[in-house]
Amino acid sequence: MSAMPGAPEDMVLVTGLSELVTGLSSDAGVGVLRGVAIALGGGRIAAIAPESELVGRYPAAQRVDCGGAVATPGLVDSHTHAVFGRWRADEYELRARGESYMEIARKGGGINASVQDLRGRSEDELVELTRPRLREMLERGTTTAEVKSGYGLRTDDELKMLRAIARLHQEGPLDLLPTFMGAHEFPPEHRGSVRAGYVDLLVDEMIPAVAEARLARFCDVFLEPGVFTPAEARRILEAGQAHGLGAKLHADELESGGGAELAVELGAVSADHLGAVSDAGVRALARSTTVATLLPATLFFLGRKQYAPARRLLDAGATVALATDFNPGASPSPSLPLAMTAACSQMGMTPLEALVAATAGGARALALDDGRGTLVAGAPADLVVWRADDHRMIPYRYGVNLVQGVWKRGRRVV
Amino acid sequence: MSAMPGAPEDMVLVTGLSELVTGLSSDAGVGVLRGVAIALGGGRIAAIAPESELVGRYPAAQRVDCGGAVATPGLVDSHTHAVFGRWRADEYELRARGESYMEIARKGGGINASVQDLRGRSEDELVELTRPRLREMLERGTTTAEVKSGYGLRTDDELKMLRAIARLHQEGPLDLLPTFMGAHEFPPEHRGSVRAGYVDLLVDEMIPAVAEARLARFCDVFLEPGVFTPAEARRILEAGQAHGLGAKLHADELESGGGAELAVELGAVSADHLGAVSDAGVRALARSTTVATLLPATLFFLGRKQYAPARRLLDAGATVALATDFNPGASPSPSLPLAMTAACSQMGMTPLEALVAATAGGARALALDDGRGTLVAGAPADLVVWRADDHRMIPYRYGVNLVQGVWKRGRRVV
Repeated sequence: MSAMPGAPEDMVLVTGLSELVTGLSSDAGVGVLRGVAIALGGGRIAAIAPESELVGRYPAAQRVDCGGAVATPGLVDSHTHAVFGRWRADEYELRARGESYMEIARKGGGINASVQDLRGRSEDELVELTRPRLREMLERGTTTAEVKSGYGLRTDDELKMLRAIARLHQEGPLDLLPTFMGAHEFPPEHRGSVRAGYVDLLVDEMIPAVAEARLARFCDVFLEPGVFTPAEARRILEAGQAHGLGAKLHADELESGGGAELAVELGAVSADHLGAVSDAGVRALARSTTVATLLPATLFFLGRKQYAPARRLLDAGATVALATDFNPGASPSPSLPLAMTAACSQMGMTPLEALVAATAGGARALALDDGRGTLVAGAPADLVVWRADDHRMIPYRYGVNLVQGVWKRGRRVV
Repeated sequence: MSAMPGAPEDMVLVTGLSELVTGLSSDAGVGVLRGVAIALGGGRIAAIAPESELVGRYPAAQRVDCGGAVATPGLVDSHTHAVFGRWRADEYELRARGESYMEIARKGGGINASVQDLRGRSEDELVELTRPRLREMLERGTTTAEVKSGYGLRTDDELKMLRAIARLHQEGPLDLLPTFMGAHEFPPEHRGSVRAGYVDLLVDEMIPAVAEARLARFCDVFLEPGVFTPAEARRILEAGQAHGLGAKLHADELESGGGAELAVELGAVSADHLGAVSDAGVRALARSTTVATLLPATLFFLGRKQYAPARRLLDAGATVALATDFNPGASPSPSLPLAMTAACSQMGMTPLEALVAATAGGARALALDDGRGTLVAGAPADLVVWRADDHRMIPYRYGVNLVQGVWKRGRRVV
């Protein structure tokens, strides 16, 4: 609640708030504030204090009256595959007709369909196709997002994807954190007996090239029966770490395979999915700094009945993040609020826990330590104002976009 | 594909369509048309024919180019409780903390909370509160909706709700069909030993008063263990039928209780929910004209794992409708497209089956025989144009509102 210096003429006061969600854990008793306003200046939160106090302190500031709305930190979507070519609505119909995700993949659909498609597109095309998707995310409250490569699966195509991400980050207003995920699947030219050659390519060529070009912050692997094995995942993630890329792991999505335990052992920043995580995996995550990133909208969309054990993870003390998994196969939704609804309805998270997981939790899953994901003095002025008088309305009113305004680094962008 | 007369200067040509979904069953091979345009005039569909042919036939018509979008009939939401007072986001948090819907109801929450709230509000207040909710529905493609009473549970308060529905119907542009649902729950003054007195009140006083005032088309009963019994439901629905109100039944929602069979036996227009319908109930529905109205968004929101057996109902030959169940407890979403996503993801309906169920199916569930719910020459010009080049995108791209334009009776309203 301390003030920061800033040119008074550039100050903005966000007033008329019914509630402010700090993004800090509700256990600290500071999860939800009432009666406060927000002062923004120099791209940061200058102060959060009772409205009358801030109005007195900054008489020259521009006032934005929100008419009784809820303010939260800008949402942090820590797991997306938002760069891709065409949509795959055709596969959605096949799944409705009873074909499984893995069956469709074996017939050349799934990730491979996106690989075939993406290899034929230019970097410019990818930028054009992705820009409106990022706008959809922003309009639903996301101000920082991770985006993975992994539809190229060849050095040049992976670099093309990562350059598209870098350009879109430069354009803004969303901050994008790039993850190299050449280990999303084995490409068609490396199936069967030549699998090991692809892991060599990842380790010996792609990771060094990506790191050299400074095009990624993280390295991620799809660890799942039929895709990458634990030994392959370890080798790839350790190579990434040796090149300065933090480790992430698609772990225990559909079957339990010790993925959470491996992520913890490697000191991964996050273990993602966890629909089938074991009890040992829950305990390992709870004792670690590895964030458990849950993607319940994906499981809803795939029609699965078993969700990640969010309640056990939270009760054990693990840090939980919620993300969309935005991608053309398993989760074509850019909406983090809808993922929160799935979290509350299907996994027993409270609305406040879901909000913390989609803000501060997401920031932890991206190793951000600049205050992003929280609404406190000194943090970047990334915030969302919602058309609601109670933060619980955000996941409760699913199927409606309640976003009333979005600020990124102090600038209004929605 | 025949033309209808209409003043040429009032004609509108909707062109630039990638696909047109007729709303007719896909079995007839006419579910999806390509290369066609739509001529609207006099509030009706004048013609659907190849674009070049219509442009030649109506050279003076106003052109609306949709840029490659999908056109469907206006959605028909055949089951809502959209008139109510306050939202109940507080209960959403309790449920996330592990309390069941029925536990919350026993403590004075649930429907009873809405009853206490609604009794203290004026008809004007209800109109004001409901108007923006209907706008949300319209913006997501709904052009006709059923709305139930059932939060008054006293003659005057039930009539107040129905008058609010009548006023909102008069205002338009949504067509609203009112259902009397005094048998939504037992009111607090009629619990325990005086239950029978409430059924007498429904049959002897409320139904005659509602019918006399011509304030309802249908009569509905919540048949479920702990609420109304089969014998009570039969008595109430037969009284309604004697007064000209078509029967509807909330049946087999959480437990199987012979509700579908009873609905068929009574010649009900629809049996709704059916999450726990028996095999005998499926067979009975398939042999009848009673529409099976499924509400999968409710089951998603309540976190239930078992959905209605849509696939078995369709394969057996039952007519299926999809609706939102829009209400402040179990389904605070106005989005029929999101209910379609739940239908495809959770119940194995194809995107086209879901669209037919949310258009022609809904119209059948409301006994509409004027062509609503279909996009064919002669039908009312209620249609939606979607920002998509493939109808499968509508349920696939969940979490985003793809509606580009809505026409009601030939007038553009979104």
